Amino acid sequence: MKNHSVFCVSDHTGVTVEAVAKSVLAQFPALEFSLIALPFIDSPEKAQAAAAQIAAIPGALVFSTLSDPALRAILRDSRANLFDVFGFVVPAVETALGQAATPSGGRTHGMANNYESRMDAVNFSLALDDGLQPQRLDQADLILVGVSRVGKTPTALYLALQYGLRVANYPLTPDDLEHGSLPDVLLANLPRLRALTLSAERLAAIRQARYPDSRYASLQQCRDELAAAERLFTRHAVPVIDTTRMSVEEIAARLRNLP
Amino acid sequence: MKNHSVFCVSDHTGVTVEAVAKSVLAQFPALEFSLIALPFIDSPEKAQAAAAQIAAIPGALVFSTLSDPALRAILRDSRANLFDVFGFVVPAVETALGQAATPSGGRTHGMANNYESRMDAVNFSLALDDGLQPQRLDQADLILVGVSRVGKTPTALYLALQYGLRVANYPLTPDDLEHGSLPDVLLANLPRLRALTLSAERLAAIRQARYPDSRYASLQQCRDELAAAERLFTRHAVPVIDTTRMSVEEIAARLRNLP
Repeated sequence: MKNHSVFCVSDHTGVTVEAVAKSVLAQFPALEFSLIALPFIDSPEKAQAAAAQIAAIPGALVFSTLSDPALRAILRDSRANLFDVFGFVVPAVETALGQAATPSGGRTHGMANNYESRMDAVNFSLALDDGLQPQRLDQADLILVGVSRVGKTPTALYLALQYGLRVANYPLTPDDLEHGSLPDVLLANLPRLRALTLSAERLAAIRQARYPDSRYASLQQCRDELAAAERLFTRHAVPVIDTTRMSVEEIAARLRNLP
Repeated sequence: MKNHSVFCVSDHTGVTVEAVAKSVLAQFPALEFSLIALPFIDSPEKAQAAAAQIAAIPGALVFSTLSDPALRAILRDSRANLFDVFGFVVPAVETALGQAATPSGGRTHGMANNYESRMDAVNFSLALDDGLQPQRLDQADLILVGVSRVGKTPTALYLALQYGLRVANYPLTPDDLEHGSLPDVLLANLPRLRALTLSAERLAAIRQARYPDSRYASLQQCRDELAAAERLFTRHAVPVIDTTRMSVEEIAARLRNLP
């Protein structure tokens, strides 16, 4: 099958243009694509080099979020299929706001300002990973709970990195589950608890990869733990997300938007 | 100053539409904006509720990555300033590919497939955080080195979460620096080393927040450590990134694109 070359050209990190390209290309599921990132294209020299690289692959698709019209013009000279994301959207926004845009070199609004709060959030989430420092749980924005290997740590770190949220995570051990009630330190912070769960099959596969043929990884043990945990969540009205078929982005977006 | 309300409407997580909105709005630095995320708008009922919420704020701006034309039509009825990102781009891509798009409910290409490799990468990066398990450094895609508090851990986690890279990080202690050579375990993995550095003032401020008035946080100590570290990086030809004015996205994008 033909593999379409797709360039993602940006004057900054390329996070935005890659997100757009992936979302658009997902709407052509029968085709195959190879993405080539060309970030930090912020001078005429770099734009000319990018245009030459693109022109060498006839029929290539090019997504661009260059904001400088002069650089965009250089890219157009490559005669590729150019999808100029800001070229479509910015004029419409200018009309709505009654004001001309200032090409900004791709710097995202307020990024510099919230960098420190996001790094603080990452450090907080690492410090309160896996039940560490429970005396600080009252400082958390959210507290993820669930049984071992249900995805708490990556989700907490993603929420910290992406949104600057201080997210602790606390594992429910078999002892906690037998006790029939959430640990006191969690009950003291009930409104900020969010529970993650998974299908027993998926959890067993994840545990199996780490501790093959252990009781811990057995399907029966996973079923028992998940069922006991779900009873606790219901009893204390903790909102639950089943992450079985979700990406970490999706889990994070749903957690942000839970009641 | 007038604060413009901006809705980001998506049928999935909203990561793409928020990235586009922030990049476009950054080009209007004199204005102020409040972003309201409306993710998971994937049914006519939810689209009608979103349209009603938008219509309640006259003059609101609306960025949308809805892919279902029926849902887009409902949003248009809100009579807001609608910037339909895919509405602009997808028809142009259809023409270039000679094929009609299949609205996909926003699922990103290959997201489900690489979820596990990204989670594995996060677990790897946590397991090899801060010099832990040096015997596994040969399994890393990249090894970040630098003095304490230079930003290694958040950068490693971001690369793991965003790109599925297995990124270890290894701190250079004052002992390492006095020794005048990189530790043997790093020399054995030299091609995958990437160094982070910062201005001494910035590093002192970061350390000061954690250990006020310590020798560790003094400007002189920071200057000495950074200078000694940079001599080592030069001696062993380790590529160096100065992160003083960079976001974690920018550091990560530059690391991916280093020679």
